[in-house]
Amino acid sequence: MTYCVGLLVEDGLVMVADTRTNAGLDDISTYRKLHHFNVPGERVMMLASAGNLSVTQSVLSLLSEGVPGEDGEPATKLVEAPTMFQAAQLIGRAIRRVRAIEKAGFEAAQIRFSISLLFGGQIGDEPMRLFLIYSAGNFIECSTDAPFLQIGEHKYGKPILDRAVKFETDLYDALKVGLVSMDSTMRSNLGVGLPLDIAVARRGALALEVNHRIEAGETYFHDLRERWSAALRAAHRAIPRPPYGPAPAAK
Amino acid sequence: MTYCVGLLVEDGLVMVADTRTNAGLDDISTYRKLHHFNVPGERVMMLASAGNLSVTQSVLSLLSEGVPGEDGEPATKLVEAPTMFQAAQLIGRAIRRVRAIEKAGFEAAQIRFSISLLFGGQIGDEPMRLFLIYSAGNFIECSTDAPFLQIGEHKYGKPILDRAVKFETDLYDALKVGLVSMDSTMRSNLGVGLPLDIAVARRGALALEVNHRIEAGETYFHDLRERWSAALRAAHRAIPRPPYGPAPAAK
Repeated sequence: MTYCVGLLVEDGLVMVADTRTNAGLDDISTYRKLHHFNVPGERVMMLASAGNLSVTQSVLSLLSEGVPGEDGEPATKLVEAPTMFQAAQLIGRAIRRVRAIEKAGFEAAQIRFSISLLFGGQIGDEPMRLFLIYSAGNFIECSTDAPFLQIGEHKYGKPILDRAVKFETDLYDALKVGLVSMDSTMRSNLGVGLPLDIAVARRGALALEVNHRIEAGETYFHDLRERWSAALRAAHRAIPRPPYGPAPAAK
Repeated sequence: MTYCVGLLVEDGLVMVADTRTNAGLDDISTYRKLHHFNVPGERVMMLASAGNLSVTQSVLSLLSEGVPGEDGEPATKLVEAPTMFQAAQLIGRAIRRVRAIEKAGFEAAQIRFSISLLFGGQIGDEPMRLFLIYSAGNFIECSTDAPFLQIGEHKYGKPILDRAVKFETDLYDALKVGLVSMDSTMRSNLGVGLPLDIAVARRGALALEVNHRIEAGETYFHDLRERWSAALRAAHRAIPRPPYGPAPAAK
């Protein structure tokens, strides 16, 4: 499994991704799922992946080497796409190309072709954008009403995002909530695990402000997990006893 | 969709179930999913259901009218089962019987035969028990290490259960956490909704202590939702800013 979340708030873009891949519970590895395609001062682009590892790696390689054009047009690299929308379209084309190559083999082996990607960033003067790209190569864009998108094992970590993230949320608060959302997911699904990759890009900066791997045992994240657990326990204790049933005996 | 949670703690058993059923988003109804089979002073039994409504209703009717025995033995009603284990087995038999009747029609219409049940309670002097019964009629039992079981849309509401419920948790705290878990689920999945049915049985009492429907607008639950949201917001605000990236500008 995998869990990645992208948050596009007023001040910029945050992505948080785990690194655990598994083929069964007895075959667990660490692979980077959060990638960057940057030309500082010109563009900043982040791409997080979930799904079949062979598919996601092939798509990434195509995006680095160049996705062949249709009708014999020259290949285009992701860093050459003129706008974020055309970059998302290019990623969709890369997915369809990998599918065309793998289709027969996957069907013969009864393997599901699965991939989903979070793609966000900014090119030049155009707005910062965040997309979720599906297996078919189609995609949706993040809105200011719900300024986050998730891929992979997304349900455990969604309640805190639904409650705590608004478009106006501070950039590093968004990172914090992303980490809390990741923590909730890791607690409930063994297929999502440390280390974590995080990235932050401030709107207009056209460069990464944070590009960091959180390893197991890192003090801040350990402290965040402890504080969050303690706060949840305190929060439910502070809610009054349900008024149903007999009144509790006096102590 | 559906979400039901059962909590078996030191002092007794709690169940919380929503009531929303839907065949598509444009066909939403309210159906009771939490049922009781009680003989006060002799036994208390709760049964919560998720899955195909026609299947769950047929299973419930069989359990009320009597599940035909194998090899021509007389039918047995759920309230006649001598132990909780044999009662769970009887429910499994009822599921297999409904499947045998519906199999051909479901296959012809390409409908999936799906049902899952939470079944908990106590008979006479035997221990209080809680089971999760699957579509195949097999079942697992709740343990003291993780003193809850869930059916239906279970992921959104699991992080709070993982953190806040222990076997030693007070009975009405368990109810409270069950309601918080339900709230998290309702916020993230429109297929789970009010009103809610709740039931509480104290260990050894052999009768329901609470049997209540929480309607939309009920003050306590509304207040719980507000308090929980406020506490979550306060909780993540109290966590320090992530130490990555440049220090924030002085204000």
